[in-house]
Amino acid sequence: MEKLRFGIVGMGVQGKLYAALLTGQSLGGETFPIPEGCELTAVSSRSAETVDLAKAMNVAYFADWKALAASDVCDAVIITVPHYLHHEVAIYALQQGKHVLCEKPADIRASDVEKMLATQGDRALGIIFHQRTKPVFRKLREIIATGELGNLRRSNWIINSWWRPDSYYQSNVWRGTWGGEGGGIVVNQLPHQLDLWTGLCGMPEQLYCLAKEGAWRDIPVENDVTITVKYPGGATGVLVSCTHDPMGTDRLELDFDKGKILVEDSKKATVYRFIQSEQAWNETVAAGVLERIPAQERYTVEEFEMEQHFAAAYIEIFENFAAHIHSGVPLIADGMAGLREVQLANAIQLSGWKGLPVSVPCDAEEFNAGLQEKIDTEK
Amino acid sequence: MEKLRFGIVGMGVQGKLYAALLTGQSLGGETFPIPEGCELTAVSSRSAETVDLAKAMNVAYFADWKALAASDVCDAVIITVPHYLHHEVAIYALQQGKHVLCEKPADIRASDVEKMLATQGDRALGIIFHQRTKPVFRKLREIIATGELGNLRRSNWIINSWWRPDSYYQSNVWRGTWGGEGGGIVVNQLPHQLDLWTGLCGMPEQLYCLAKEGAWRDIPVENDVTITVKYPGGATGVLVSCTHDPMGTDRLELDFDKGKILVEDSKKATVYRFIQSEQAWNETVAAGVLERIPAQERYTVEEFEMEQHFAAAYIEIFENFAAHIHSGVPLIADGMAGLREVQLANAIQLSGWKGLPVSVPCDAEEFNAGLQEKIDTEK
Repeated sequence: MEKLRFGIVGMGVQGKLYAALLTGQSLGGETFPIPEGCELTAVSSRSAETVDLAKAMNVAYFADWKALAASDVCDAVIITVPHYLHHEVAIYALQQGKHVLCEKPADIRASDVEKMLATQGDRALGIIFHQRTKPVFRKLREIIATGELGNLRRSNWIINSWWRPDSYYQSNVWRGTWGGEGGGIVVNQLPHQLDLWTGLCGMPEQLYCLAKEGAWRDIPVENDVTITVKYPGGATGVLVSCTHDPMGTDRLELDFDKGKILVEDSKKATVYRFIQSEQAWNETVAAGVLERIPAQERYTVEEFEMEQHFAAAYIEIFENFAAHIHSGVPLIADGMAGLREVQLANAIQLSGWKGLPVSVPCDAEEFNAGLQEKIDTEK
Repeated sequence: MEKLRFGIVGMGVQGKLYAALLTGQSLGGETFPIPEGCELTAVSSRSAETVDLAKAMNVAYFADWKALAASDVCDAVIITVPHYLHHEVAIYALQQGKHVLCEKPADIRASDVEKMLATQGDRALGIIFHQRTKPVFRKLREIIATGELGNLRRSNWIINSWWRPDSYYQSNVWRGTWGGEGGGIVVNQLPHQLDLWTGLCGMPEQLYCLAKEGAWRDIPVENDVTITVKYPGGATGVLVSCTHDPMGTDRLELDFDKGKILVEDSKKATVYRFIQSEQAWNETVAAGVLERIPAQERYTVEEFEMEQHFAAAYIEIFENFAAHIHSGVPLIADGMAGLREVQLANAIQLSGWKGLPVSVPCDAEEFNAGLQEKIDTEK
């Protein structure tokens, strides 16, 4: 079977993890099969450690990522460099005829992601939104897609399950900075949830974000956000997230015309299917009466709890990317998915800076100018 | 024992209920003692039915509420007329030397509630925020007041447990109208929760409300609100409420420096007390480590579920009002509590109309002008 030859640009925490997975190394005592249709042939990083790693894995080493991207030893480039550099590496690699699989977020500025898309041509451009493979969300997307629950009315997600102390932010100079990372919780912790949220509910047309920078932490970036969204269909939504909750809640509730979904800890789902639509009850049932109808005459209840090893999610992303190139299987998350997530993130940050609601996507120039001001005035 | 003689102005659903409680009538088969220190001596309403009711209860009947307020047959007036008339009745009754116990909301416009307060003098002015007596909230207020949980960081309340069909809104001409009721969910369903919310969390200094008018209902007023608040101490909060959720959620989560509170269905509480403050963990524990510390070394858990008959809550309000007048016991909810709730409600509605954040309290003239425009353009 034909194998897609990957080169990894950036050998930090994620780069090393992907290298390990693509070469079948054991992870914390567990071994996973090398992703089908994939092989690792090159890595690039300026660290001396990577030279040894490359030798041990028997893959080519490049000190210069451009040399890797231009070389013939790989067909596709995995990008795990700092967020701000994603578009630069992606565009160069695409120009060299390489396929690109990029770490989330696609980049910091939507305008830069658009440049990646404009360069794509006939190459594949994928984003590592591996949480799309989480079985509970996949199953919920399928249920919603059947239309059996009707239209969305409301979404409400509290996702505080990522406690980060000051020592975390101090562990790397770029962490929690405008210049190094482009923001805080919105660009670091939240991208997967923003992607999953729009996967379940669609893209909002307008939002308002109450953002707190340095909330109970010594950082200049936002780490406490309350995001109110308005969807084109008339539904509303809220997402609340912070990094200072030591017993973080992860609870998503979705209301539809004909049902309600509750997801706890991103793995346990309860799906309530109404016996009839809310519209029908509205026409036929009096106030105070509905609550007294026995529960089994009002709705059915389906519960499921599904977990997946994090490595399995990444392996699926790699296998899907190779299958896309080899046989045209649709990508789990393509460049457009990356763009949409960054557009949403940009609007969230811009709204927080302005203290005003903004449309989605927001004005790119205004966002870029606002970000530049944050970078320039960062202490 | 001295008895406070009450006259009721307005004999609709609430007026009749209060008359029944003050005369010891049985309610749905249950009988409650007449509130201590209270007696009913007069009622006022233009309906013929009230004439018979007054006769049956052996109390004075007044067709004209001003005659009741000016008469010597009562010491205190209970106001249960439509919201907009509260201040007019209250001010007149206070001017006649009567004490006033007013149904919630105190009125629609904060500026009108201020007029009530300005007229109060040495008379008692109470608001029927009977849900303040709910044991679960009372106990939580006590816990918070000890300071053991530290400062508030976040509040999140989903309160959709009041499904109202179109037939409800059509059941009375004033329901769900700007001219008749002054709004929708904010002035009808939410006042108690707005009052309880500020009782637990304090008054916000700024808020943004995404308000939907006529959401899945044929009404011109708001019945779906998403309210984001900013508290003076740096905490944030969200309250979501609508009248179109057929299996409404009622879930309140409060985060503090040293604990977390979860309240379900406004009766079941779980209080998590952290072994140390989040600030201390922030200084000493690394990312990814905290979650692995056994739960019992991180927090204690206290659960309690408390219910109260709705009649008991009203009886306590009446007895407290009488005891306040007779022996200076503090009121459960005074006129200032009524004003604060209306100030919050006004800011919520104004923000919704403008689609912009507003300060709390908001500009009274701007609110009044906005409300007038709503009334004038109502179909």
